[in-house]
Amino acid sequence: MLTEDELIERFFAPAGSTRADVILGIGDDAAVLAPPADRQIVSTVDTINENIHFPAGLPARFIGHRAMAVNLSDLAAMGAEPAWATLSLSIPDSDEEWLSGFSGGLLELAARFGVALTGGDTVRGPLSICVNLQGFVEPGRQITRAGARPGDAIFITGTTGDAAAGLERLQAHTCSGPLVEKFLTPEPRVEIGRDLVGSASSAIDLSDGLAGDLGKLMKASGTAARLDLDRVPLSESILAAMDRDRARDLALAGGDDYELCFTLPKAKKGLAREIEEKYSVAITCVGEVIAGSGVMLCGEGADAGMPNSWQHFRQMKT
Amino acid sequence: MLTEDELIERFFAPAGSTRADVILGIGDDAAVLAPPADRQIVSTVDTINENIHFPAGLPARFIGHRAMAVNLSDLAAMGAEPAWATLSLSIPDSDEEWLSGFSGGLLELAARFGVALTGGDTVRGPLSICVNLQGFVEPGRQITRAGARPGDAIFITGTTGDAAAGLERLQAHTCSGPLVEKFLTPEPRVEIGRDLVGSASSAIDLSDGLAGDLGKLMKASGTAARLDLDRVPLSESILAAMDRDRARDLALAGGDDYELCFTLPKAKKGLAREIEEKYSVAITCVGEVIAGSGVMLCGEGADAGMPNSWQHFRQMKT
Repeated sequence: MLTEDELIERFFAPAGSTRADVILGIGDDAAVLAPPADRQIVSTVDTINENIHFPAGLPARFIGHRAMAVNLSDLAAMGAEPAWATLSLSIPDSDEEWLSGFSGGLLELAARFGVALTGGDTVRGPLSICVNLQGFVEPGRQITRAGARPGDAIFITGTTGDAAAGLERLQAHTCSGPLVEKFLTPEPRVEIGRDLVGSASSAIDLSDGLAGDLGKLMKASGTAARLDLDRVPLSESILAAMDRDRARDLALAGGDDYELCFTLPKAKKGLAREIEEKYSVAITCVGEVIAGSGVMLCGEGADAGMPNSWQHFRQMKT
Repeated sequence: MLTEDELIERFFAPAGSTRADVILGIGDDAAVLAPPADRQIVSTVDTINENIHFPAGLPARFIGHRAMAVNLSDLAAMGAEPAWATLSLSIPDSDEEWLSGFSGGLLELAARFGVALTGGDTVRGPLSICVNLQGFVEPGRQITRAGARPGDAIFITGTTGDAAAGLERLQAHTCSGPLVEKFLTPEPRVEIGRDLVGSASSAIDLSDGLAGDLGKLMKASGTAARLDLDRVPLSESILAAMDRDRARDLALAGGDDYELCFTLPKAKKGLAREIEEKYSVAITCVGEVIAGSGVMLCGEGADAGMPNSWQHFRQMKT
């Protein structure tokens, strides 16, 4: 088995010095970083574990991609520009083919968003990956969960439910197609988050399902949401794979999409169309912020009530 | 089982706002932090796993202490001032008594060193704790592993081998005494690290054993060390517990002491005595940096050669 130092040097050290603000990268007791003078730091941490966040046996490059993507998605929701990451990797053994695939998936996505890996730690144990990601935001300009106001319009990027549908197909041994792709390689909406700075009144990333995450957004803002089921977009792929009722359930309660849900004051609604055109990503108004608390469903299917949450879906599977 | 949000709010959120530079703490997609204008950031990550870094069944407050201490020790070796931490906690279930003890041990040590917990993540899984710690250093003033020069004196803080001896006793069901204490509640040498800034030519923290870690220090500096076995200090406790040869083996190859090993140019050797008096911690010169590579043993017992490394000790135990 490679020692920890050999392993980090071989698979991860090349990524330690791709930014000028990394004064000292991987290889000492700690890294030294020079933050820009006119920015604040946005910091997040997310761990993904085998059998909890991804099925056992998933090819390593998708695990590496996912570990970076879920953290990039958190920064996207804050409107931050990603910069530096650390990795703590717990692995049962140092299989070099696995490590090569894993580091490839992680570093490719990191490079796409200008992220330097500044520190690493490997331990022997059950497969678990902890990434800490930091980025920058103009002082006071971060988008939080707490700024939504009654009258604001609620938007989501892309479509939801696809990743959950993809995971179902993967677990049924279907290994390709757009739904499976959506689960395997979530695309963090970093640029869109940056473009929302100064306009969005609140934002959250959709990791646990639209209904639940929108509920968290409203709770933090002290407001309620009217969520119009007729407007929740369903992808062609999910409609080709299952009936509309089931697709809508997954769109509301399925997790892992890593789309953004955000609110825009009425005067700034036009930004949604601009972003849609700039990135060729659907930006859909799915409802409105109202006074009160909770998430009210309206439109066709609202009488069926809220589907079970994603946690519930997941727990049935493990 | 508590949800992730409930768990973080209950056990960890109170620690999220104890510093004025934490603009937004635990509870959103990410934290927002304001770095001081005239400092660089020092960042480290360390994970500790049950059965690898600590024995199963260890009381939770010692696990919490350890998770923070090992990271504080890394910053100490860089001469940095600790500031912000994130925690990713993988736990098999949310036992509230365990969580209370764990958060107590972690937050007490964090508070002692002025560290605010700015983000948290909990997942279900085998017990594993990943802490990412950040601190500040004056630009260009960090102490690295790479600055030792022939003629520099090599120092260590405190004594080594005690933690390894303590772990042995703990595994033999002796649960108290200074050796066991040394393993259970390692004391990171943060203030000493700060005082070494501008004087030490290199430093490393002793997590894997004096001989091996000194070897890493010399490798990074492109130098060799002459390590004088007659000068390696042995505590009264370790000498009361075992014969001198065995104690010296543990002092060289036993891990988990979290003392500092550092080098001082001859002109600055006086600082060692000043630090010793200021903190009532023994600061001992154990050898000298010389030209070459590797670690040369001299003094009584040198003929016996280097004992097996700490990794080897550990692997025998698991």
